[in-house]
Amino acid sequence: MQKTRLEAFSDGVLAIIITIMVLELKIPHGSTLDALLPLLPNFISYVLSFIYIGIYWNNHHHMLHTVKQVSGGILWANLHLLFWLSLVPFVTGWMGENHFESLPVALYGFMLLMAAIAYYILKEQILIKHGKDSILAKAMGTDFKGKISPIIYCIAIAASFVNTLIAGLLYALVAMMWLIPDKRIERVLESD
Amino acid sequence: MQKTRLEAFSDGVLAIIITIMVLELKIPHGSTLDALLPLLPNFISYVLSFIYIGIYWNNHHHMLHTVKQVSGGILWANLHLLFWLSLVPFVTGWMGENHFESLPVALYGFMLLMAAIAYYILKEQILIKHGKDSILAKAMGTDFKGKISPIIYCIAIAASFVNTLIAGLLYALVAMMWLIPDKRIERVLESD
Amino acid sequence: MQKTRLEAFSDGVLAIIITIMVLELKIPHGSTLDALLPLLPNFISYVLSFIYIGIYWNNHHHMLHTVKQVSGGILWANLHLLFWLSLVPFVTGWMGENHFESLPVALYGFMLLMAAIAYYILKEQILIKHGKDSILAKAMGTDFKGKISPIIYCIAIAASFVNTLIAGLLYALVAMMWLIPDKRIERVLESD
Amino acid sequence: MQKTRLEAFSDGVLAIIITIMVLELKIPHGSTLDALLPLLPNFISYVLSFIYIGIYWNNHHHMLHTVKQVSGGILWANLHLLFWLSLVPFVTGWMGENHFESLPVALYGFMLLMAAIAYYILKEQILIKHGKDSILAKAMGTDFKGKISPIIYCIAIAASFVNTLIAGLLYALVAMMWLIPDKRIERVLESD
Repeated sequence: MQKTRLEAFSDGVLAIIITIMVLELKIPHGSTLDALLPLLPNFISYVLSFIYIGIYWNNHHHMLHTVKQVSGGILWANLHLLFWLSLVPFVTGWMGENHFESLPVALYGFMLLMAAIAYYILKEQILIKHGKDSILAKAMGTDFKGKISPIIYCIAIAASFVNTLIAGLLYALVAMMWLIPDKRIERVLESD
Repeated sequence: MQKTRLEAFSDGVLAIIITIMVLELKIPHGSTLDALLPLLPNFISYVLSFIYIGIYWNNHHHMLHTVKQVSGGILWANLHLLFWLSLVPFVTGWMGENHFESLPVALYGFMLLMAAIAYYILKEQILIKHGKDSILAKAMGTDFKGKISPIIYCIAIAASFVNTLIAGLLYALVAMMWLIPDKRIERVLESD
Repeated sequence: MQKTRLEAFSDGVLAIIITIMVLELKIPHGSTLDALLPLLPNFISYVLSFIYIGIYWNNHHHMLHTVKQVSGGILWANLHLLFWLSLVPFVTGWMGENHFESLPVALYGFMLLMAAIAYYILKEQILIKHGKDSILAKAMGTDFKGKISPIIYCIAIAASFVNTLIAGLLYALVAMMWLIPDKRIERVLESD
Repeated sequence: MQKTRLEAFSDGVLAIIITIMVLELKIPHGSTLDALLPLLPNFISYVLSFIYIGIYWNNHHHMLHTVKQVSGGILWANLHLLFWLSLVPFVTGWMGENHFESLPVALYGFMLLMAAIAYYILKEQILIKHGKDSILAKAMGTDFKGKISPIIYCIAIAASFVNTLIAGLLYALVAMMWLIPDKRIERVLESD
């Protein structure tokens, strides 16, 4: 029961984030191609953020699938994750509006980094509640992707002050890496 | 379980899209009929988009009714569909704001086309997971409406550069066609 | 199942309408009372609309409680109701922004009238599906409130061109009338 | 059933409030640190409000866990609570935009005070329906936090006209106090 409501609330917040981002795609004055084209950076950052929120929803979905009991720690770790993700429309809009300038690109990476850390904390809170022999613990294994992502974000943040294209490509790289669904949890769940 | 959360997330996103569109209906300055009337094109495009999102919600609802297992492919095909639909408030606002000029009307059709393709991909992903003897496969049959819609969208996109009224009427025609509920799935479900 | 998703979608749309209305309460420039006070009409129309959406959610909740099967007619009658309610943030903002001028007040009443008619159509669709001996049919009885409300809205729309205060009081009167919960359905349900 | 829909609607509204607040964080023109830094007060008030909505969601979740039957009184007391919370994006934006000037800080406290009173009324409505021997009644006990919070809000509102920093610290203090999860209800539920 309690878990259902946690999932419903998280789904709600993620669904709203992914949808209201479009409100930062300001409708251009004029109906010509010249009026539309300057929105291309906004659109690219929109696509990137849409994919990231989709990935978080997907992984969140898989991870909570293994949860049996919700503790206060899990509740607040979950809200902490949603906090950083709630800033996605802002950093996405700022990055797109400024055509991928250094500081907005770095701030976008900082948000991704904080969300990754928040996701890690949430995982730890679930493991504390469910033990080292739980499905999640077994499924996680070494959790390579969870450990490498924050490192890449840090490199990308540094890179954004040198060459923002490199930073952008690194963000896209991490997204690609996560788009491959987390077979680990699915495999352990099925063999259970 | 997994399916429930997929439905809940999709319902959430569709509910938000259909509702935040109203925020693109900018409140006019002044309280006279002269201040309100210029919003008529915005209102007409609002009504059209409301009907389209309603149709997608309705059909999505019917199609997912037949799903028994959710694969990674279904998850991402679903997000891909939601991506194109998430652009509805933007293309609706742009089309209305510019009083149905050629390019905005064509872009509106392009969004409809991409959403139709995404819907087709989602259907294929469900069929892959559930087999050719599944309820959905039987219900779909030749899927006339699913095949004719993208063709009409393409004609409408081309027409929008000649006469936007023709394009608009074609969009309305497809909407009318889909408003007729998908009796096929209901019939097969009942006879099951 | 099908009914659950209809309720969830309607709840989602109503929850979003009731919440995004606040975005039409534009934050004033300046931090003095002089900056805040001009928002009083906006706030009053906000309160009125909040109560109306609350009433619709409450009654919708009671009415759908009696539904056993969802037909295509019920689905579309429900979307039709949500369409008129989705315009609430717009008419609320316009009425508040223009300090209750005649035309915005009349348009607000028109939206209420159309929503009332849509609610009536939805009720009819449910009755068609469930029969004259259904719980809803028994509970409705003469449906005095459902019949008197549209009449009062019509009077209020006419009144708004003479004296907007009278129109406003009539809207408030109908809201008061509906705030009294619909004991009829509860009574019949309990005696069942 | 009825309770499920009340929870779903409340979760929806709270999820939307917590997420659309970000739309009041207006994207700065310019991509420099000088453009971003003036948003610091907006960000701080955003964080404070995010925590408050999180607390309300969490406590609401615990309190409704004990509800067995939903009365009309509970429904309307719940909507009354959601009304005051729905103003959070407005008061948060106004307070941040004006860099914590006296009147916006006082209005923020007034909203918190009204929400606290609304929460108290909701609790009373649940107790009326479920009796003095119910789980909630036992769990609440003296309800120290529920009684002290409104008093601190009143002091903070008064303080905001003398020194807004004191008011801000008092708001943060109450948030801290509530962040500690309500062990009382959990304890009684477990011993049941």
